[in-house]
Amino acid sequence: MEGAANGSVDDRKIYFRSIYSQLKSELLENSAFDFTDDAREWIDKMLDYNVPGGKLNRGISVVDSYEFLKEGNALKDDEVFLACALGWCIEWLQAYFLVLDDIMDGSHTRRGQPCWFRDPKVGLIAVNDGILLRNHIPQILRKHFKGKPYYVDLLDLFNEVEFQTASGQMLDLITTFEGEKDLSKYKLPVYRRIVQYKTAYYSFYLPVACSLLMAGKKLEDFTSVRDILVEMGAYFQAQDDYLDCFGDPEVIGKIGTDIEDFKCSWLVVQAMERVNENQKKILHENYGREDAESVMKVKAVYNDLNLKDVYSEYESTSYEQLISQIEAEPSEAVQEVLKSFLAKIYKRQK
Amino acid sequence: MEGAANGSVDDRKIYFRSIYSQLKSELLENSAFDFTDDAREWIDKMLDYNVPGGKLNRGISVVDSYEFLKEGNALKDDEVFLACALGWCIEWLQAYFLVLDDIMDGSHTRRGQPCWFRDPKVGLIAVNDGILLRNHIPQILRKHFKGKPYYVDLLDLFNEVEFQTASGQMLDLITTFEGEKDLSKYKLPVYRRIVQYKTAYYSFYLPVACSLLMAGKKLEDFTSVRDILVEMGAYFQAQDDYLDCFGDPEVIGKIGTDIEDFKCSWLVVQAMERVNENQKKILHENYGREDAESVMKVKAVYNDLNLKDVYSEYESTSYEQLISQIEAEPSEAVQEVLKSFLAKIYKRQK
Ligand SMILES: [Mg+2]
Ligand SMILES: [Mg+2]
Ligand SMILES: [Mg+2]
Ligand SMILES: [Mg+2]
Ligand SMILES: [Mg+2]
Ligand SMILES: [Mg+2]
Repeated sequence: MEGAANGSVDDRKIYFRSIYSQLKSELLENSAFDFTDDAREWIDKMLDYNVPGGKLNRGISVVDSYEFLKEGNALKDDEVFLACALGWCIEWLQAYFLVLDDIMDGSHTRRGQPCWFRDPKVGLIAVNDGILLRNHIPQILRKHFKGKPYYVDLLDLFNEVEFQTASGQMLDLITTFEGEKDLSKYKLPVYRRIVQYKTAYYSFYLPVACSLLMAGKKLEDFTSVRDILVEMGAYFQAQDDYLDCFGDPEVIGKIGTDIEDFKCSWLVVQAMERVNENQKKILHENYGREDAESVMKVKAVYNDLNLKDVYSEYESTSYEQLISQIEAEPSEAVQEVLKSFLAKIYKRQK
Repeated sequence: MEGAANGSVDDRKIYFRSIYSQLKSELLENSAFDFTDDAREWIDKMLDYNVPGGKLNRGISVVDSYEFLKEGNALKDDEVFLACALGWCIEWLQAYFLVLDDIMDGSHTRRGQPCWFRDPKVGLIAVNDGILLRNHIPQILRKHFKGKPYYVDLLDLFNEVEFQTASGQMLDLITTFEGEKDLSKYKLPVYRRIVQYKTAYYSFYLPVACSLLMAGKKLEDFTSVRDILVEMGAYFQAQDDYLDCFGDPEVIGKIGTDIEDFKCSWLVVQAMERVNENQKKILHENYGREDAESVMKVKAVYNDLNLKDVYSEYESTSYEQLISQIEAEPSEAVQEVLKSFLAKIYKRQK
């Protein structure tokens, strides 16, 4: 491949970013809706505010995975473009979920800026903006993939993963309903199910599934790949929860508030499995409270239960299991894809 | 056809309703998500509250239209079932839009009961419930239509119409933004565009398009049918706006509040085209206010401008135009479909 899409990691990111502008222009000129200038301006601003500001790992990993699947054959320019377009569809999907999640959680900031719905000119119009973000995905797919042999599989895939994510979100919402703070609901199988559906499918499985479809594969032949990626997603979320409490705020770029927010975090779930009656009482009385003293008491219980060690142990075990599952995969190229995902997250500090 | 689906209008409605329960059970047993009992209960209740409580006109009209397209050939049981399933997809789509619209509009009641999000146990979880409703549609389509030659066209159709509806909703939201009440934005082309996208595509075009696909047609051969249905949708909404102000509350089953709500209604748009300076001042000062005196002043301007006559005139002209467009359609069966739609709405009082 000759284009800027090849070369270093940074070059790829620059190329990936450049595709965003093209996709946005196409959406703003979409013939399915004759926009007014006001409408065009609104969407333009809304997209810029919500879509491209993340780490873009999910999106870029579609291109990376596709490259592995091509086993050393240079990607053609149009292939890189299509892989980037699919990557952006995942970023659009993520933006959609985050805009709505922030409304439901009453959050204040996201990616270092106020949540979109906090803009006084936006407010609950953000609900429809989330819907629009979601609706852009089939527009992008239709424009660039209609006619490809895997077009219908792409539509099915995005539908399936969105359904799983929304189902996981529901499970999260009804389990951690703030109205009735009930720590006893926070059990490992519940936690595991929330994480799997709410995060793992769209963050880990979806990028690889996109690249498999582009490479002409049938997804039903890759159920073990899906299971491995979902497992990695669960591991990734446990890390996220661990770092929220024990990570270095300087490094992760924010101060965790999972304890204050009564989150169904890996840590509290592990704690609840290990507490004695007294510790249980402390958690019940202090988990989900804003004041620093309550937070400290919760952290003290975590320390008494040696959760840092429990986590280290979990991290090693997960890693070993994942590696052995990966090495059982028949295709070398697929192994490369999976190992590159794992390498990006293993022992991460942020 | 032998099944209960044939026969009288009431029999058909009873059969149509019965399909709802089947679709619901299938969704609750969906293997793409292993539900907990709590989750299953939540969705069950959420569906019953939001999906089947409307007039079901949109849904049932898929079956009616499909029957016309079969030109007197009795429908087989499985055809009736599939047409009903598509009809329910439209009802699900409507439920999704209404649940979210009520949140954005801060509404209190819907179909004679409190809006879903007003339930204190629900609140903003309703945002995700709306998303779930939307996600059920591809689940239903996949289960019952995957493998049909028109499967991908169905997915494209629902995606396109959802996109149009969300775009119309956006236009409505940014035009009628309550923060800055600006009547001068309420012009006929703006009104027309909002109505076309927000209502007409999903309410009028979508049911017929579904039946055309089932009948093996290609939608690109029916753009004039689409245009006629969109026109009918615009006419339907003008009626809705007229009845909100001048209809009999006993007959329409609710007391209109479009004036109080600062709605971009057909009436205020027509008024703004005809006002003198003094009447304009009255509208600017009183439109969008809650008190009965303001509402009365607005209605007085409507009366001074003879909007009832303007409406009668509009109604006749629309009807004649629609009839002549319909009669220009080459297919008799398609003419029947369109005339049956028109007959249902012409000169309606509710
Ligand atoms: Mg959140
Ligand atoms: Mg949340
Ligand atoms: Mg976190
Ligand atoms: Mg409303
Ligand atoms: Mg509204
Ligand atoms: Mg109305």
